[in-house]
Amino acid sequence: MTSPAPQVDSPAPALNTAAPGFKCVIPIRWSDQDVNGHVNNARVVTLMEEARIQWLNQHAVAEGIDNFTAPKLIAALNVEYLKPIFHGLELTVEMAISRIGNRSFTISYTASQESNIVFRASTVVVPFDSNAGKARTLVETELNYLNKYLISPPRDGRS
Amino acid sequence: MTSPAPQVDSPAPALNTAAPGFKCVIPIRWSDQDVNGHVNNARVVTLMEEARIQWLNQHAVAEGIDNFTAPKLIAALNVEYLKPIFHGLELTVEMAISRIGNRSFTISYTASQESNIVFRASTVVVPFDSNAGKARTLVETELNYLNKYLISPPRDGRS
Amino acid sequence: MTSPAPQVDSPAPALNTAAPGFKCVIPIRWSDQDVNGHVNNARVVTLMEEARIQWLNQHAVAEGIDNFTAPKLIAALNVEYLKPIFHGLELTVEMAISRIGNRSFTISYTASQESNIVFRASTVVVPFDSNAGKARTLVETELNYLNKYLISPPRDGRS
Amino acid sequence: MTSPAPQVDSPAPALNTAAPGFKCVIPIRWSDQDVNGHVNNARVVTLMEEARIQWLNQHAVAEGIDNFTAPKLIAALNVEYLKPIFHGLELTVEMAISRIGNRSFTISYTASQESNIVFRASTVVVPFDSNAGKARTLVETELNYLNKYLISPPRDGRS
Repeated sequence: MTSPAPQVDSPAPALNTAAPGFKCVIPIRWSDQDVNGHVNNARVVTLMEEARIQWLNQHAVAEGIDNFTAPKLIAALNVEYLKPIFHGLELTVEMAISRIGNRSFTISYTASQESNIVFRASTVVVPFDSNAGKARTLVETELNYLNKYLISPPRDGRS
Repeated sequence: MTSPAPQVDSPAPALNTAAPGFKCVIPIRWSDQDVNGHVNNARVVTLMEEARIQWLNQHAVAEGIDNFTAPKLIAALNVEYLKPIFHGLELTVEMAISRIGNRSFTISYTASQESNIVFRASTVVVPFDSNAGKARTLVETELNYLNKYLISPPRDGRS
Repeated sequence: MTSPAPQVDSPAPALNTAAPGFKCVIPIRWSDQDVNGHVNNARVVTLMEEARIQWLNQHAVAEGIDNFTAPKLIAALNVEYLKPIFHGLELTVEMAISRIGNRSFTISYTASQESNIVFRASTVVVPFDSNAGKARTLVETELNYLNKYLISPPRDGRS
Repeated sequence: MTSPAPQVDSPAPALNTAAPGFKCVIPIRWSDQDVNGHVNNARVVTLMEEARIQWLNQHAVAEGIDNFTAPKLIAALNVEYLKPIFHGLELTVEMAISRIGNRSFTISYTASQESNIVFRASTVVVPFDSNAGKARTLVETELNYLNKYLISPPRDGRS
């Protein structure tokens, strides 16, 4: 058994509390529940995906940045499940950017139901050049957009 | 925007390479692919769940330990996606135990397609007492079973 | 190969065009798309489920009928897929009751995107008595509620 | 409320019991269960899809027919759910062809757990020409392959 370490971004950025987050409500489906009666832990990752799509594929486009609608890979994922998530209660997901690299960036997520934080998470997002078959460099308009939501200064490391 | 850090287990245990892992093949469905043509990142977490179920709800039961079939919560999740996962190729998942606490333990996962590691991951699993509505203490038979797969000594910390 | 016929309800009730339908918008998730770039045919059935839940588990409850929130089985399903369903366009689902039996009823669905009908469907719903382990008889308050949405007179047959 | 009838194929072909079916075992995942403790009715449609993929995208290819791996649309779906489907029991799906048209064909499904039939179903499958953006005509090698599994003579009607 060789199981060396996933090298994910630290999920604990220094916060810039002045930075705005992007906030949305993600409707929970009845089928998101598993046999234990609350939202399944894997389905939570789908809800994060949906929140990210609303941000980068819809809001950013409305702001004039359509680059993010092209394929993006997820390189790393980190979730801390804090409370069970229930169908029938509104789920609010607030996101910010916690790292910007040359060819990737990290989104941080904080989700709530009835004012209780139900999970915190982060994903490393890698915009992908399908023709070249590899990660592409972030362009200036993208960097400007992401910087508006940056909650910590760019750090060295993964690019 | 308040987005403090997920406090997940470190995904990098010191390895005891003598410890056996539990290995299984998880069939990939056509529908596990997303519009980008490979297995969706959230669906990977379902594949991990399925591997864990084969281990703790089926293999452990065959070994006489049926406690793990009762509800279990996932407290934390960590995935490093290394390569795209494709439908049509066999997916092998090897798991081991990388931490044992009083009321939780951590599973490490290494998954491969065609001898290439496609993801590494870890999940913190919390056996749950549905009647009491809270985490329960691991019992001796469970601890003995988990210890057979332990790839690092128990560490202080999350219990 | 023995494959006798599914005996589903006819999906073609005589319409009572004066009857009101229950109409809702079901948000499509990015992950509802399959590798072919439109909403997967099986996922359409999940969208129907979600529409039905909004009707019977939420609207009916708001109207004072909470019986339908108890487990219900689906005994038969019929879908005619008319056009591809796309992420990014609003999906409207209109439902009505096309049959009321003693222990089951049939919901008819008509779904649209941009004023085009994308699918028509029907499901036979069986309220279930979990304690008795079998279908239960519909009670008067339920029958009254369903009758308000009935688009054809009750017919003989499946009960 | 305008809800005219889905015009699906009759699910009741005259059987040619001499015709062979294609039979496969579809592994049920823990996550296929919904909150009611058995396999969700929409997920059953995913299991049908998976059985169809094993047949047309894998077995047919092994037999030298790779045309079916190209995109196919589902035009109609019919399921009769006969018994709850449980995780932990083997699910066997037997399929045959119950109609062959010029541009579509119908697959019939009979699924069993522990020798009990749990559902019967049919789907109208439409091979699709992605470049032309429309249904394509079935070619001779496809027709020959499908005919080997035909359980009733071709009927007039949908092509």
